[in-house]
Amino acid sequence: MTGRVPTYDYERDGAAIYARSFATIRAEADLSRFTPEQAQIAVRIIHACGRVDVAALIEMSRDLVNRARGALRAGAPVLCDSEMVAHGVTHARLPARNEVICTLRDPRTPTLAATLGTTRSAAALELWGDRLAGAVVAIGNAPTALFHLLEHIDAGGPRPAAIIGMPVGFVGAVESKDALAARSDLSHVIVRGRQGGSAMAAATLNALASERE
Amino acid sequence: MTGRVPTYDYERDGAAIYARSFATIRAEADLSRFTPEQAQIAVRIIHACGRVDVAALIEMSRDLVNRARGALRAGAPVLCDSEMVAHGVTHARLPARNEVICTLRDPRTPTLAATLGTTRSAAALELWGDRLAGAVVAIGNAPTALFHLLEHIDAGGPRPAAIIGMPVGFVGAVESKDALAARSDLSHVIVRGRQGGSAMAAATLNALASERE
Repeated sequence: MTGRVPTYDYERDGAAIYARSFATIRAEADLSRFTPEQAQIAVRIIHACGRVDVAALIEMSRDLVNRARGALRAGAPVLCDSEMVAHGVTHARLPARNEVICTLRDPRTPTLAATLGTTRSAAALELWGDRLAGAVVAIGNAPTALFHLLEHIDAGGPRPAAIIGMPVGFVGAVESKDALAARSDLSHVIVRGRQGGSAMAAATLNALASERE
Repeated sequence: MTGRVPTYDYERDGAAIYARSFATIRAEADLSRFTPEQAQIAVRIIHACGRVDVAALIEMSRDLVNRARGALRAGAPVLCDSEMVAHGVTHARLPARNEVICTLRDPRTPTLAATLGTTRSAAALELWGDRLAGAVVAIGNAPTALFHLLEHIDAGGPRPAAIIGMPVGFVGAVESKDALAARSDLSHVIVRGRQGGSAMAAATLNALASERE
């Protein structure tokens, strides 16, 4: 069909689109407080949301990039709080055919949520089981999932290698990310404030998965 | 595990979280230029991104809500440019067990992209075929997909009932949404500027799918 009528004038080459996008972000965003490796993560977070001012809201543990990359290279699974995050992961960037897991739609989740008196997003992470040990966790939707993860760890649950904490919204998002940021014992990256979401969380994971920009 | 240690203080009831979120958005966002039905859509878009100022960037055709709701009630499919959008659709809100389709991972897509000289996201919509007629299209990732859709329609392709045009980013997002907004012949909703994304597009679809807030 295409090509028969006058077309819009726009960039159609995927690689060129990426290159121009990242160049624009690097020209406009203040990335000066990041190391070169951290800046790669920040660039992809900004790319996912279209706002360069988000750079100021990103906070990373000093060991975040190394720990997450090391875990992924060693084959650690990626544990996600939502199907959107899981489906935003670019499998071609994963270094060890890592499993990408979301248990939100597991048939046991609704009962578990009722029993625990919490949301399905929070209850779902109980089903991660031992896979949580050394995993990279990506939370891009539910503040309750992030709070529940911290409680789970404090109760003696397995410890992940790194936590991408980017729930979004108006109830609990700010507070759950503040709680994670206060934990010097957990390697993490967050976006402060109400902004966040599946796209940013998946972009962060994709940036950590490969050094290729 | 949980309950054994002091827990964080936060809202754990999903329905209460939704209610408080939407109440906060309605208290803070300027929704005065929207009809009550349009405001429902705007509230969910804001909910997805965590920014009430996005209200000012939302533009809807006057007939958007009616056309999209009518199409979905009549069983129209939902056609998505990315897996993330498709997996953000809440099936329980769909009125007619509508099909939710993304053809990005169809094995024919890479070849088609090479042949057409465009991105896989744009080429994938060639595989929507006749399902595009009367469908609700949700574009939350690729500007090239939105441009290609407009070209496809101009070349005599099937006409959708409504287009959710919310690609995100730094190359083509602004321009492709401006191009859609200029089309009075196509019922649409957009978020002006660089912001957009899968979460906003899926939230828009979820708002259109059901009148339940």
